[in-house]
Amino acid sequence: MNLESFTTAAAVRHAARSGELTGPTPGLAMGYVQANLVILPKDDAFDFLLFCQRNPRPCPLLDVTEVGSPEPRTIAPGADIRTDLPAYRVFRDGQLVDEPTNLLGLWRDDLVGFLIGCSFTFENALLAADLPVRHIEECRNVPMYRTNIACKPAGRFHGPMVVSMRPMTPSQTVRATTICSRFPRAHGAPIHFGNPESIGIPRIDQPDFGDSVQIRPDEIPVFWACGVTPQAVIMEAKLPFVMTHKPGHMFLTDLRDHELENL
Amino acid sequence: MNLESFTTAAAVRHAARSGELTGPTPGLAMGYVQANLVILPKDDAFDFLLFCQRNPRPCPLLDVTEVGSPEPRTIAPGADIRTDLPAYRVFRDGQLVDEPTNLLGLWRDDLVGFLIGCSFTFENALLAADLPVRHIEECRNVPMYRTNIACKPAGRFHGPMVVSMRPMTPSQTVRATTICSRFPRAHGAPIHFGNPESIGIPRIDQPDFGDSVQIRPDEIPVFWACGVTPQAVIMEAKLPFVMTHKPGHMFLTDLRDHELENL
Repeated sequence: MNLESFTTAAAVRHAARSGELTGPTPGLAMGYVQANLVILPKDDAFDFLLFCQRNPRPCPLLDVTEVGSPEPRTIAPGADIRTDLPAYRVFRDGQLVDEPTNLLGLWRDDLVGFLIGCSFTFENALLAADLPVRHIEECRNVPMYRTNIACKPAGRFHGPMVVSMRPMTPSQTVRATTICSRFPRAHGAPIHFGNPESIGIPRIDQPDFGDSVQIRPDEIPVFWACGVTPQAVIMEAKLPFVMTHKPGHMFLTDLRDHELENL
Repeated sequence: MNLESFTTAAAVRHAARSGELTGPTPGLAMGYVQANLVILPKDDAFDFLLFCQRNPRPCPLLDVTEVGSPEPRTIAPGADIRTDLPAYRVFRDGQLVDEPTNLLGLWRDDLVGFLIGCSFTFENALLAADLPVRHIEECRNVPMYRTNIACKPAGRFHGPMVVSMRPMTPSQTVRATTICSRFPRAHGAPIHFGNPESIGIPRIDQPDFGDSVQIRPDEIPVFWACGVTPQAVIMEAKLPFVMTHKPGHMFLTDLRDHELENL
């Protein structure tokens, strides 16, 4: 299978649906917006929607499905969140219990799907501006850290913001800020740069998730709100039943990157 | 009572709470963000939250209260939406049944309050840039029109977008677009300018709500998504029980206008 043959989001979704694609999605159908997925029962959906509304930097909502419907009608009409991602995770009482390649046998009439923006969108814009994205240069996962920045709570959902980090020079940081502020639905502008300890990160070389990357002498660490935040908050809430995408195995939307620009 | 003595949002809320202030709020505590209010039972709150999330231009959410709590904790800690507005409207089965000055006798443990951004914020920015806001010049209400632009539906909530109109020259329209695009939580950039018929407005001199204003020969009508949209959609849904602010009698938040800038 030639992954570069996936030039549209629909082609990626179709390959995932047919079982042909079970691997990660970075680099597929470039220019189409990829999204994090969270699926919850209706009973928890209002509080989670409120959590996202109150914390738009880590949880920028792209779409929410109608109760019981697996179709993200706004961002991918005709798609099916039960089948169109390459791999999923199923949690019961806060424990990971399965990593299936579809959710057909697990779907219920009371489920609601949340599609949340992802850093790929602004990383594409940074790359287009010749700004460095170190973990891509080093073929690693982006380094991510728990911080001491509290999210605004909503019902049973609360916890610290998780951030991703990309090293840059000060002048690159300024340009990256300008570029990313155009994408509020893809985490927006950085939330911090410089001293990691001031946001509760003791060791920059020991990320809580992902891989460590090199920070050069003329560079500072720059931190963005990260889509792992809602996942961490959901794990912490120990819900009876929740399903998500498997990390890196995202939902491909029909939105183009430029459509997330705040114009 | 000297209205200009209200220099802070808290002072306006206190005067409304004490019954001293029962009139409209435009011009009070200038520089503080004013908000539309919708109060619904929990059973309808998820769908309405989803409607707002899907239609951010007419329904930019500033805060949503916890179920049963009358405190908009994010934008006005300590405030009480049952008492801190000068006047309210109560609807049952889609019919206006009362216009009380507080909701203390009507509050229930299952109610959720939605605070929605308002055009005053961007109008202040337009005035600061010496751009014309005709209805203010003419001491009238802003003209508002139903359009043929369908909102994205959510559950039982659906209907056309309502827009407000301010006449400007083309070059003023360009500057207003730049300024308003900085305020996505106050309706953002215009959604149309020029020919009213192309968005389903047959007579520009006959607004559906508010008052007609003069359009000069060198001006075109410029249209913004309007906070009356959610109210029209709620009326149309004929909910058993819903309460709102009385038009023009808004909730004063502790947010400053510049805090709504998308930075």
